[in-house]
Amino acid sequence: MTARLKPGERLRIVKLMAYGWSSVRSRPALHDQVVAALSAARLTSWEGLLSEQRAYLDDFWGRADVELEGDPEIQQAVRFALFHVLQAGARGERRPIPAKGLTGPGYDGHTFWDTEIFVLPVLTLTLPEAAADALRWRYSILELAKERARQLRLRGAAFPWRTIHGEECSGYWPASTAAFHINADIAYTVVHYMQATGNNAFEEEVGLELLVETARLWRTLGYRDAVDRFRIDGVTGPDEYSAIADNNVYTNLMAQHNLHSAVEAVQRHPSVAHALGVDAEEIASWRDAADKMLIPYDERLGVTPQAESFTEHEVWDFASTAPDQYPLLLHFPYFDLYRKQVLKQADLVLAMQLCGDAFTAEQKARNFAYYEPLTVRDSSLSASTQAVLAAEVGQLDLAYDYLGEAALMDLDDLEHNARDGVHIASLAGAWTALVAGFGGLRYEGSLSFAPRLPDGIERLAFRILFRGRRLRVEVTATEAMYRLLDGSPLKIRHHGDEIILPADEAVTRPIPPVKAGPRPAQPSGRAPIARRARRSS
Amino acid sequence: MTARLKPGERLRIVKLMAYGWSSVRSRPALHDQVVAALSAARLTSWEGLLSEQRAYLDDFWGRADVELEGDPEIQQAVRFALFHVLQAGARGERRPIPAKGLTGPGYDGHTFWDTEIFVLPVLTLTLPEAAADALRWRYSILELAKERARQLRLRGAAFPWRTIHGEECSGYWPASTAAFHINADIAYTVVHYMQATGNNAFEEEVGLELLVETARLWRTLGYRDAVDRFRIDGVTGPDEYSAIADNNVYTNLMAQHNLHSAVEAVQRHPSVAHALGVDAEEIASWRDAADKMLIPYDERLGVTPQAESFTEHEVWDFASTAPDQYPLLLHFPYFDLYRKQVLKQADLVLAMQLCGDAFTAEQKARNFAYYEPLTVRDSSLSASTQAVLAAEVGQLDLAYDYLGEAALMDLDDLEHNARDGVHIASLAGAWTALVAGFGGLRYEGSLSFAPRLPDGIERLAFRILFRGRRLRVEVTATEAMYRLLDGSPLKIRHHGDEIILPADEAVTRPIPPVKAGPRPAQPSGRAPIARRARRSS
Repeated sequence: MTARLKPGERLRIVKLMAYGWSSVRSRPALHDQVVAALSAARLTSWEGLLSEQRAYLDDFWGRADVELEGDPEIQQAVRFALFHVLQAGARGERRPIPAKGLTGPGYDGHTFWDTEIFVLPVLTLTLPEAAADALRWRYSILELAKERARQLRLRGAAFPWRTIHGEECSGYWPASTAAFHINADIAYTVVHYMQATGNNAFEEEVGLELLVETARLWRTLGYRDAVDRFRIDGVTGPDEYSAIADNNVYTNLMAQHNLHSAVEAVQRHPSVAHALGVDAEEIASWRDAADKMLIPYDERLGVTPQAESFTEHEVWDFASTAPDQYPLLLHFPYFDLYRKQVLKQADLVLAMQLCGDAFTAEQKARNFAYYEPLTVRDSSLSASTQAVLAAEVGQLDLAYDYLGEAALMDLDDLEHNARDGVHIASLAGAWTALVAGFGGLRYEGSLSFAPRLPDGIERLAFRILFRGRRLRVEVTATEAMYRLLDGSPLKIRHHGDEIILPADEAVTRPIPPVKAGPRPAQPSGRAPIARRARRSS
Repeated sequence: MTARLKPGERLRIVKLMAYGWSSVRSRPALHDQVVAALSAARLTSWEGLLSEQRAYLDDFWGRADVELEGDPEIQQAVRFALFHVLQAGARGERRPIPAKGLTGPGYDGHTFWDTEIFVLPVLTLTLPEAAADALRWRYSILELAKERARQLRLRGAAFPWRTIHGEECSGYWPASTAAFHINADIAYTVVHYMQATGNNAFEEEVGLELLVETARLWRTLGYRDAVDRFRIDGVTGPDEYSAIADNNVYTNLMAQHNLHSAVEAVQRHPSVAHALGVDAEEIASWRDAADKMLIPYDERLGVTPQAESFTEHEVWDFASTAPDQYPLLLHFPYFDLYRKQVLKQADLVLAMQLCGDAFTAEQKARNFAYYEPLTVRDSSLSASTQAVLAAEVGQLDLAYDYLGEAALMDLDDLEHNARDGVHIASLAGAWTALVAGFGGLRYEGSLSFAPRLPDGIERLAFRILFRGRRLRVEVTATEAMYRLLDGSPLKIRHHGDEIILPADEAVTRPIPPVKAGPRPAQPSGRAPIARRARRSS
């Protein structure tokens, strides 16, 4: 392009670019798509594109924004986090959401379990169609997962630990194939999505089959032993400093949830279930496996072992471990890590977040206090979970510190690898630390909150989308205010008390006091950065 | 060389060749050695070389021959076996004895634990200087083993699972580094060698340090738990279809033996022990670890689990496993094998052979019956062990079948890999099946026999060298005759009864009747070939 300008004249060039990519469509089809996008943009102009984008984002913030008074750094970080989760999720388009989203080459673009357990819960309550798309992608690789299960002499589906196209891409089976919990993680997120959206068509078309095939997996992976317990032996839970253990509690509770959920789903959709070959006997076998699920308990210590025998192992020698020997996996052999009590990341504590009904409040506090001094957080998939449970057991300052770690993982480059891309799951975890931690949001059965703020956060307000309604929750030190921004009345719980939220009228409730035990210690040198000290420095 | 012959004249050429090899000596030194050997041969002539060789072998057979009446095939096989063990051992010359001896390229010439546990026991009682040399080779790599222990953050020595020069050469740690029992195996064979030879100089120069450094390993590999048990978690025992288990009974019993033996040895040699830095506190810590060693027991089944929780795992689905799916490791993932009750090879049964005092006769029978239906013998390191225990618990026909498998492994090419070289350990095992099986030889403390023959073997006679004396044992269906061929009187036991064997006078004792339970079954299709059926066919 050339132009001849007279002195004083100005040339303004507006260049419109379009990008198209597909793993399935033909080159001409892609070309047509790009040309059409350019034509539309030319018609709309730059201003038009800008206002479309702004409208999209305004809409998103209108149902998803989190406001924080008292900590502008975390306020900024959580919006940064939500933006990246949105970007990774909204453009997923029935393809996997990778561990780094669309931001970098880390993990070679692979997708793992943390998409379901850390990222999709945020999308489910803020951009549910993106969560549905990600689960539809899982559905699209179901045949490969069934083939993988057959290879392993199991029934149902065995989803890959790391993948792009659906095939297992991991080379070290003790920390991949053996980590069967990914199947229950997918099922859990399907159920979560269904509860939050009530999208019945999704359940019929996608969810039910995912629940059925994962339930079938558990039924054959575990077995009923001679004393009538359902055991799942020789598998790996979330904590990657353990492997090939018997009856990992996270795995067994999530499998139990998977089996019960499959029973309920097939009863809601008997004809679809029939088409999948599910009969009364199979349903009974799932219910039976779930009811008999072995959940080990250490009577001596009064805590739940991460897996059978875990609490009998030697405790890692933290006192002799130097600060520069973290992450441990780069300095010590797996042989040594696997046989001792040391956690890379929350495992039993994650089970207490996701399957909270399986524990009493007292057990949660005891278990949390037990695992804190053993958890080194060499994984970014830990701080947010610890934040949620710390908040639940009343360790609000500690929860605040963990929130800081999850939220600033990339902005402060805490693991010195932000150049590889952001930690989408940790960013999603920042939202979870606020909403499920200080907001106390759970929805096992019905939607419930148990909000409680740490010193230093004066006000927390967040919005979620639940069964088509936008709900706003605002929390201060003394009270919580719930308001439906649209939609018909909704039943929720506030610290255990039922509330029927009317349309368009706020309900305020006081926050009951909490009495927490002493703050648990972390391994030497592995405490999170103290949030309040950092802010004042 | 040329020669001009007249019609009818004959030329006889005697070509003498010498072979020399060394990994340490210089080329000129090797050349000198070869030239010297040739000069000596020229002086001696072919006939001289022949008679030297014959004298060497006559001497060997004079203290080591096994005679078998009633089964000429096994008679031939056991002599073939002894010859190969002799050849591999006699020319070891302080280098490792590899798994294939000097006969083939299998296992790339590497040496494993079976040298100590299967091969050296035979050499100790027939060619003790070869056993001593093999242990001196272990001593020569002690510094590397100590370095390896340091790498693993352990004290003492961690010997390599597979090696030629002393470095660990295995690439899959769950079945190599984690198989720490190799250290107790070496210690066991040191003790065994000491008991059989009374070679005090060897103990001072070599044995003591091996015992001390391996004891130090166990002391740091295991730990005393909160209820005062010494646990060894996350290690792999002999059975390669299990890995990374807690308190493998074979490992724990052998470690206990190692620790007790080190205590006794340092008390016999206080000044050498002092030079190795052993003090009273360390000795007490070894004794304490040994005394508190955790040996799990399954009260419900009344059997000893191979490792903690083993008997709670699902039993392998043998009924659905086709004959062409053996060896299982080529058809099923380790993930599946490790988590179920299926044994590649004897594990707890080997513990009952080597540490028999830890079990009552009734426990041995119950344990043997429990593990038989689970053991598929995908390893050649199993049949001879099963033969020994089958004989001990009175399953004489079954022991005979296992003897056949061990003895004919290579002659009948049972594993279709004899082209890679013979199975030295299995061949040694044929001797062990006869001498420790039907001869009932043990020496925990003192030398004892409990001979008993199966139908089909009319007479078994064997010779061993024990504390400088040649001893001949001859067994028939009804009685056993013990005779010292040289040396001063020796105390032995016959089926528990003490006998003081006089010099040069045979002692005969009747064989008590045995009452065995029903013959245990093996996994479908994995029973050993019936020896008597084969002989009559």
